[in-house]
Amino acid sequence: MTMKVLGFAAQSATDALAPFRFERRDPRPDDVEIEILYCGVCHSDLHMARNDWGWTFYPVVPGHEIIGRVLGVGADVTRFKVGEHVGIGCMVDSCQHCSACEQGLEQYCEEGHTLTYGSKDRHDGMMTYGGYSEKIVASDKFVVKVPAGLNLAGAAPLLCAGITTWSPLRHWQVGPGSKVAIVGLGGLGHMGIKLARALGAEVTLFSRSPGKEADARRLGADHIVLSTDEAQMRAARNHFDLIIDTVPYQHDVNPYLPTLSLNGTLVLVGLVGDLAPTLSTVPLILGRKAVAGSVIGGIAETQEMLDFCGQHGITSEIEVIKMQEINAAYERMQKSDVKYRFVIDMASLKA
Amino acid sequence: MTMKVLGFAAQSATDALAPFRFERRDPRPDDVEIEILYCGVCHSDLHMARNDWGWTFYPVVPGHEIIGRVLGVGADVTRFKVGEHVGIGCMVDSCQHCSACEQGLEQYCEEGHTLTYGSKDRHDGMMTYGGYSEKIVASDKFVVKVPAGLNLAGAAPLLCAGITTWSPLRHWQVGPGSKVAIVGLGGLGHMGIKLARALGAEVTLFSRSPGKEADARRLGADHIVLSTDEAQMRAARNHFDLIIDTVPYQHDVNPYLPTLSLNGTLVLVGLVGDLAPTLSTVPLILGRKAVAGSVIGGIAETQEMLDFCGQHGITSEIEVIKMQEINAAYERMQKSDVKYRFVIDMASLKA
Repeated sequence: MTMKVLGFAAQSATDALAPFRFERRDPRPDDVEIEILYCGVCHSDLHMARNDWGWTFYPVVPGHEIIGRVLGVGADVTRFKVGEHVGIGCMVDSCQHCSACEQGLEQYCEEGHTLTYGSKDRHDGMMTYGGYSEKIVASDKFVVKVPAGLNLAGAAPLLCAGITTWSPLRHWQVGPGSKVAIVGLGGLGHMGIKLARALGAEVTLFSRSPGKEADARRLGADHIVLSTDEAQMRAARNHFDLIIDTVPYQHDVNPYLPTLSLNGTLVLVGLVGDLAPTLSTVPLILGRKAVAGSVIGGIAETQEMLDFCGQHGITSEIEVIKMQEINAAYERMQKSDVKYRFVIDMASLKA
Repeated sequence: MTMKVLGFAAQSATDALAPFRFERRDPRPDDVEIEILYCGVCHSDLHMARNDWGWTFYPVVPGHEIIGRVLGVGADVTRFKVGEHVGIGCMVDSCQHCSACEQGLEQYCEEGHTLTYGSKDRHDGMMTYGGYSEKIVASDKFVVKVPAGLNLAGAAPLLCAGITTWSPLRHWQVGPGSKVAIVGLGGLGHMGIKLARALGAEVTLFSRSPGKEADARRLGADHIVLSTDEAQMRAARNHFDLIIDTVPYQHDVNPYLPTLSLNGTLVLVGLVGDLAPTLSTVPLILGRKAVAGSVIGGIAETQEMLDFCGQHGITSEIEVIKMQEINAAYERMQKSDVKYRFVIDMASLKA
């Protein structure tokens, strides 16, 4: 009925991550059993491990940027076969019948989607555990195919950082001629630059420090605007159709609003919490501008994004680490000392 | 070169409005000269008279919900003839060549539109004075036609309260099947209910007090939700495609966000200033929801709105006052003691 799996878990908000053996269900008829090859390290892994949002259940096995190989499939699974390379992102289930799910927007499931780790499975009530582990078992509806030719380690962050920026780019219909700005050059931001550029947009990075220019241009940015330079900010007024703000901590959003064009939208994908300082309505009203939020993306659009990345040869810029290095990696992430995503080589777990 | 016109003006932020003679330009070739019959009393008239926004030039003659009769036209004017009933709203000019103007969205003119009162004319530098006066002279591009059959006094508030709610209803594509909520039952809110209903939407009024139910239903609301009642607010979750928030003072917008549907927008049309308390990003992110702003509407959509009101027999609910009663009317407006708009019968000015 269950299988024993080795992973790395935090046992409390103050404990370092350490080896942990736990149980996963045996595959149900619609399940895919996957050997995990690589798992990206997302900022939310750190938030969850340390209970920064107040709703972590312990022990927690983080990890939701999963790339693996199919080990087996349930009797009803037809889309996957043993040996294929597949991915799992932030969700492993949803109600499958609400209006959002019917639109392929499982991330907005009205009954709440089941997170890849730290949720209760909606069928058997077992806790879900994430990708910092040997294996995972999940419904085939939440498994996506990795296009041939993509570097597997570099593809892992596409499952969260990639789709989180792809979904708003597509929802707000970015294409040739669009003017897009990215706030924050981290795991999400560097993917936002690559994807927006490949979609044909003119891409600008808002940066607080001048040192990022060369990197941003190499990733595909056409322009860099120093947000601390008033003249540069003034010159960028009324320019952007879409600003994707990837910054995962509280920061002042107001300076960016005047740089939105008429009908432009600033979409927050990183900050979970209160906007502080508070927004002024004036730039919104004077240009029919909007501040919106967006979270990851649906399964169909995750597949679409992976296929797009396959066609355009897009992967994340990564630094591969061993599972045993995760606690040091968390410390470095907190200092933004990573270009631009840590990815765990899960073979290290067996070492 | 100029004509003497009688109006009512505030001479300072603390002076009551009183009779004032001032100069208007003689009509230019593209101008229409209009005898003012009725002028609505907007909340911003009060804000401007008292310099609440800090940018009032004195003396100020308020009034931007103007209905009148054409007295004469310049040599180049072909769209209007003497004797016709016409309207002027919040703007009397714009650059006419920026991207916004070219889209018919003069309210978002990149060079700034010329306000009906309190602005400098962009050609001769003369101050603009508003509708609390006998006559006005303005470019034909900013004059709209009043459809036959509309009550003239009741039509005056359409020029600001009407278009301010019409423009977001149209921009966010409200029609049959749409679910719209209005926050605030005043001059703007009551027009929002009427227009949304006539467009075929299901219309809900958010109210803080139970006494408004009968009135709201008479105006066209299908539902009333008491925003102070947690059970009613919970029952309204994930419901509205568009919420038009007409409240012109600082108030908490957060409780309304969970009632937006997936991809829903709350648009602020009344509040000019800081959002306080601050917004939480959580409901935005968890449903790709947006907070936007909108100001009045373009000239083409103002004409569209007037024609729609003509077809549907829609006017504002008004209380007609004499020009000499304006200071008492301001006091009553501050206590929300008006259903739902004061309109000045300008014939009283001559009495």
